[in-house]
Amino acid sequence: MSAPSASTGPSTPAAPEAGSPASVPGRIMAGEMAEQPEVLRRILDEGAPGIRRIAEQIAARNPRFVLLTARGTSDNAALYAKYLLEVLLGKPCGLTSMSTTTAYGARPDLTDCLVIAVSQSGGSPDLVASTEAARGAGAITLAVTNNSGSPLAETAEFHIDVLAGPEKALPATKTYTAELLALYLLVEGMRGGDGAAAAKSLPGLARSVLDRQPEIKALAARYRFADRMVLTSRGYGYPTAKEAALKLMETSYIPALSYSGADLLHGPLAMVDNVSPVIAIVSRGRGGEALQPVLDRLLDRGADLVAIGAQSAVERATAGFALPTEDVPEELQPILEIMPLQLLAYEVTIARGQDPDAPRALAKVTETR
Amino acid sequence: MSAPSASTGPSTPAAPEAGSPASVPGRIMAGEMAEQPEVLRRILDEGAPGIRRIAEQIAARNPRFVLLTARGTSDNAALYAKYLLEVLLGKPCGLTSMSTTTAYGARPDLTDCLVIAVSQSGGSPDLVASTEAARGAGAITLAVTNNSGSPLAETAEFHIDVLAGPEKALPATKTYTAELLALYLLVEGMRGGDGAAAAKSLPGLARSVLDRQPEIKALAARYRFADRMVLTSRGYGYPTAKEAALKLMETSYIPALSYSGADLLHGPLAMVDNVSPVIAIVSRGRGGEALQPVLDRLLDRGADLVAIGAQSAVERATAGFALPTEDVPEELQPILEIMPLQLLAYEVTIARGQDPDAPRALAKVTETR
Repeated sequence: MSAPSASTGPSTPAAPEAGSPASVPGRIMAGEMAEQPEVLRRILDEGAPGIRRIAEQIAARNPRFVLLTARGTSDNAALYAKYLLEVLLGKPCGLTSMSTTTAYGARPDLTDCLVIAVSQSGGSPDLVASTEAARGAGAITLAVTNNSGSPLAETAEFHIDVLAGPEKALPATKTYTAELLALYLLVEGMRGGDGAAAAKSLPGLARSVLDRQPEIKALAARYRFADRMVLTSRGYGYPTAKEAALKLMETSYIPALSYSGADLLHGPLAMVDNVSPVIAIVSRGRGGEALQPVLDRLLDRGADLVAIGAQSAVERATAGFALPTEDVPEELQPILEIMPLQLLAYEVTIARGQDPDAPRALAKVTETR
Repeated sequence: MSAPSASTGPSTPAAPEAGSPASVPGRIMAGEMAEQPEVLRRILDEGAPGIRRIAEQIAARNPRFVLLTARGTSDNAALYAKYLLEVLLGKPCGLTSMSTTTAYGARPDLTDCLVIAVSQSGGSPDLVASTEAARGAGAITLAVTNNSGSPLAETAEFHIDVLAGPEKALPATKTYTAELLALYLLVEGMRGGDGAAAAKSLPGLARSVLDRQPEIKALAARYRFADRMVLTSRGYGYPTAKEAALKLMETSYIPALSYSGADLLHGPLAMVDNVSPVIAIVSRGRGGEALQPVLDRLLDRGADLVAIGAQSAVERATAGFALPTEDVPEELQPILEIMPLQLLAYEVTIARGQDPDAPRALAKVTETR
């Protein structure tokens, strides 16, 4: 698979160049969020067959266990893949602590191990180094990036391009949902399923969610003066809670803490009260069911609880955003769940008089070693 | 190994019963923090030989990879063990997402896999269920608990008692350092090393750190009015950053965010400025070295930076607490690093007029399923 070239890449009339005199706060992020339905469709139409071939080649080598390596937003996509791999394929998984390789020189025996590195840019030196070390240690290596010409894509044995087109905003949005869909297609392909068919309603549903931005704008007023936020979920929705917290922090600077519902009861609940708003991602399915006792506990405590997900959960909460996921398998719901939360990060930031396109201190490719 | 019975357990004159009319805020937590040198010595004197035997039996079965299962404070101990297993033993590791088993019914093939469940109480139903499932799926199972009569201890094939004596405070302190030392002895035992000899200075050093509580009391004044805090580290010190954040949140309710130094540069750095104090755990060794570029970046941004660890790092920071770790291997330093941070959580909470012994909404055994 090759990256879309500049000439065939998506055009985004709504998103001017960063720093352009015509730019208004958040235009770049807004433009990239709006591209998501188109990116999802491109992956299904153009990317899926190639992902399927890679999935079959990897499945034929029958890896016993899987390690996932990533940072930031891509690390949340990797966590989503961990749930897929454990639940759908029954493969034991781990998220890599990169420093064990790069700082401590650990050289584990990775025979029978699939190592998946996920990175928007494919340019972080520590990801390249740890993928190179994994390949040398006998692992099957796969890079999932948005840049097929990147050092990471070249280092790994296999490469999947998430086809999101150039991402210029510092808060990653379209590459996150693109990574989720590509990883879903990979795992479905590894078990011989037809992931593209299961996902075919997503572009249209994504458009319908993004079109409801005015609802999110109203919700954002709730958090304009918040000095902290808590996000929670269980199961497939948990990576969404983590990614939403990251998005809120890097745009609005509100300290946003994310916990699995079970962990929340183990200590951080002490921090939650009626001045610490809670956002719960309540998937339709077993993850949402497992979260119910946590939601009950939060409501008992009088928490300000906003539910994102199933209509029934929204009705029980203080407020919320119902997702059109009636016919979407639980494992695909995260691709829709994050969108209202991306919009929320954007709208809260605008409401606070800040610019979502100009987070303090961030560079697009982070050169940790 | 058997748990200490009530009659032979540690006596703690400084810690009256919870709810006793004579109790003053934080007396129970203070008493248990003060027991740590004695608990470490008990593990080295009484526990080490049994841990060594279990380590040898497990090593003889030659597990290919390791999964760690825990929640809350014990999850931070499990993360520490992950670094040990990857760096010292070269075993690929993962932290379990328990809901894949308990909510989604995943049944991975765990032949050749060592599954370690870490829990103070050994009583959480979801840990028991996932350990039972792991044993049924072919894993070698080991429970590390503070209660040899617990359901978890009985479910796992092997059990290590961390011998910390009854823990009554809701914020776990002595069981955390006890879990770290027990897990260190396990991993050293698995590679045939003499962990007890390497760790023999720890009880005395722990005492010398805890005796410096007045220094921490002075440091606590800095955070009395903080509305958020960021903790960071890399490598072996990273679990310390996570555990310190949990301790601060569950006692003082200050939102405390923890990031590996590398992840901090990927987004959350936008949140750090001169009103968001940062605490960095700077180990002596490769983890501390890998953290230096992050510390440089924080100091460039004018962050209020407190360093816990090497004297040289304390001198460069805004303030700090130097640890007597000149002769302590890097992998053992976390056992000392957390102690000033436990004291800090305690002192900040007292300074804010709250009671560290009475966190809102917490139960000692959390019954998530």
